[in-house]
Amino acid sequence: MSKKNAFYAQSGGVTAVINASACGVIETARKHKDKIGKVYAGRNGIIGALTEDLIDTTKESAKAISSLRYTPSGAFGSCRYKLKSLEANKREYERLIEVFRAHNIGYFFYNGGGDSADTCYKVSQLSEKLGYPVQAIHVPKTVDNDLPITDCCPGFGSVAKYIAVSTLEASFDVRSMAKTSTKVFVLEVMGRHAGWIAAAGGLVEDHGIPVVILFPEIEFDQKKFLAKVNAMVKKHGYCSVVVSEGCHYPDGKFLAEQGTRDAFGHAQLGGAAPVVANMVKDALGYKFHWAVADYLQRAARHIASKTDVDQAYALGKSAVELAIKGQNAVMPTVDRISDKPYKWKIGVAPLSKVANVEKFMPRNFITPDGFGITDKCRTYLSPLIKGEDYPPFKDGMPQYVSLKNLAVPKKLAGFKI
Amino acid sequence: MSKKNAFYAQSGGVTAVINASACGVIETARKHKDKIGKVYAGRNGIIGALTEDLIDTTKESAKAISSLRYTPSGAFGSCRYKLKSLEANKREYERLIEVFRAHNIGYFFYNGGGDSADTCYKVSQLSEKLGYPVQAIHVPKTVDNDLPITDCCPGFGSVAKYIAVSTLEASFDVRSMAKTSTKVFVLEVMGRHAGWIAAAGGLVEDHGIPVVILFPEIEFDQKKFLAKVNAMVKKHGYCSVVVSEGCHYPDGKFLAEQGTRDAFGHAQLGGAAPVVANMVKDALGYKFHWAVADYLQRAARHIASKTDVDQAYALGKSAVELAIKGQNAVMPTVDRISDKPYKWKIGVAPLSKVANVEKFMPRNFITPDGFGITDKCRTYLSPLIKGEDYPPFKDGMPQYVSLKNLAVPKKLAGFKI
Repeated sequence: MSKKNAFYAQSGGVTAVINASACGVIETARKHKDKIGKVYAGRNGIIGALTEDLIDTTKESAKAISSLRYTPSGAFGSCRYKLKSLEANKREYERLIEVFRAHNIGYFFYNGGGDSADTCYKVSQLSEKLGYPVQAIHVPKTVDNDLPITDCCPGFGSVAKYIAVSTLEASFDVRSMAKTSTKVFVLEVMGRHAGWIAAAGGLVEDHGIPVVILFPEIEFDQKKFLAKVNAMVKKHGYCSVVVSEGCHYPDGKFLAEQGTRDAFGHAQLGGAAPVVANMVKDALGYKFHWAVADYLQRAARHIASKTDVDQAYALGKSAVELAIKGQNAVMPTVDRISDKPYKWKIGVAPLSKVANVEKFMPRNFITPDGFGITDKCRTYLSPLIKGEDYPPFKDGMPQYVSLKNLAVPKKLAGFKI
Repeated sequence: MSKKNAFYAQSGGVTAVINASACGVIETARKHKDKIGKVYAGRNGIIGALTEDLIDTTKESAKAISSLRYTPSGAFGSCRYKLKSLEANKREYERLIEVFRAHNIGYFFYNGGGDSADTCYKVSQLSEKLGYPVQAIHVPKTVDNDLPITDCCPGFGSVAKYIAVSTLEASFDVRSMAKTSTKVFVLEVMGRHAGWIAAAGGLVEDHGIPVVILFPEIEFDQKKFLAKVNAMVKKHGYCSVVVSEGCHYPDGKFLAEQGTRDAFGHAQLGGAAPVVANMVKDALGYKFHWAVADYLQRAARHIASKTDVDQAYALGKSAVELAIKGQNAVMPTVDRISDKPYKWKIGVAPLSKVANVEKFMPRNFITPDGFGITDKCRTYLSPLIKGEDYPPFKDGMPQYVSLKNLAVPKKLAGFKI
């Protein structure tokens, strides 16, 4: 068997540690030059494969590649692009094979979430269905922590740490000001369907902070919510609210969709945080502040969890090792061995069981009243934010790497996506 | 002369390093027990003095006090409460004297911004005007960096570092996604009148990031702004926008005041970021994301500037040393000796020249088009974010201190504020 090259791509929303997985893939492939040729990265994810826009990672120095470990975002560009089924869009799969064949690619490493696992799974079937031999391995990544089988997803631990630390810090601020000023602080966090990120805000309770969590898994009940906030403020003098962007009413309408109009009558895209904050103000009269963390939370490599970085790297490394062992249609996973002390190892899951399955917060991770996290949840979350892994700084700024990202010369005609 | 006690209070919006100043005041006073008795802290700022709600800091261990150096927020509580003039509210000043006399207080350390400097100045005149001997020293603090004479204000360097780092990280994220998704990221930052904080976003240009800054000092021109963003996206594929909450139209109306109404017809308190983001979407059609940092920025001790922490501590320490030297009605300042290498020393300013004076961005710190910072500004800002000073972490969370804050027994009748 002639030595095949590898294709690696980043998919969907990027994270603080997806490049750590890229680092794991590339460094490990470089250690096995007898088995794997060059690693080509797709510029802007799978689009790079379809358009034959490949980046030659061999042009990057060992130092640059190792710097990926502490650089947030997607170093090769990502995309939101889901391949349709083989039946619905055979043309795209045939193009992939054309590109793989032209560049002698036999390994497909796809770094993404649930949708991407589905794409990876489809690519893994190319061998059987279209006769082109390729091994497809999925490298898990998602801040939403909603992939099945794996105990957690790289990217989540760091965003959880960011939310826990930020909620703690902002709550200390509110506590200072509550006597004459702000009494309620509202922080909006990511998570359209699963409340894992919001749950991380609950970790501040261990630090004596009164906090109310609004999960997408729990239908929003305004009356109960306001009563909860009022009780907290009456008891503690202040409280913090962590609201998931996916929090919604029983009819499915998101809190952020208030039918708000601007001065020109345009529908105004708001956030859940200002809606919740104004609700508190209108009903209870408390002075408030609100923040929307948005990209800051998933990009915050400066406060990444060491556990998360280590796992992201290990999963990238394992993906290559699985490929070398001849595996196809699998995803390396994080398997939890014990909570205290926290121990984990790498496992393997078949992609058929990962693709298109979403993992929500178990109900017993949420308190009976729906506004907090249980000890079970705390036991799950705590180890994931453990450890700091600061990037190097120079003149006060983190020294994140921007790669050269040189293109592999094209061999084929263009392709319209 | 009998040994007098000291009063210390935190005033106005708190910061990531105001407790470092408290640490400087208390540790230095403890080193001069021959000159200064106990340090009493006002619970919730000056309100604590008026209501005789004093905290006995001697009940706190040396370890707890030293932990203030790395704990954000106001450990004794702050307040937004400005004393009127002596003529307008003599009753409050007489009450202060009553409390000071009852607790043998001869030193007044007030840790705050412009309004607080005014209060401190008024207290400094009590000796002359009402015959009670007290030395009042102001300890500067404000994330807005808008106090005169001092080269910078404690609290600003850390918020500037937070904004620069966050803008860099979020911009890396947008750059990754721009091909098929978000092309414009908008971050709203504090600074109602002065654009110092927004300016810090401009530091990412050194890292190759295209950024547009909207300052409160520059009247907002929608057409020019949209043209600038469009040019940036056309050239780089994406851009980031840092908008000050104080950004406003020529008629003084803030961007955030769009006359927006919610479903019930209530005026909706929005933010400048969603307004700007929707403007970009409507005019240019680019997909956007927006974040509002709010309290997260001024509370973010985890990414504080070491320079800022050192200066905050030094100013607290110097305040006590000035008091021991018999000074009154002064504020220690940061005096810049040189830019490269950055050197600074502590100076002294008379409070009469500090109170109620606001320092804006000089026009030559802003580029001619009004959307960026100049090299002069960069030279000013860069050293202020220099150095990291991480708090200790345990189990993934910073170990910020919450003091016991035990009350000094009251000796007087109540007082209604």
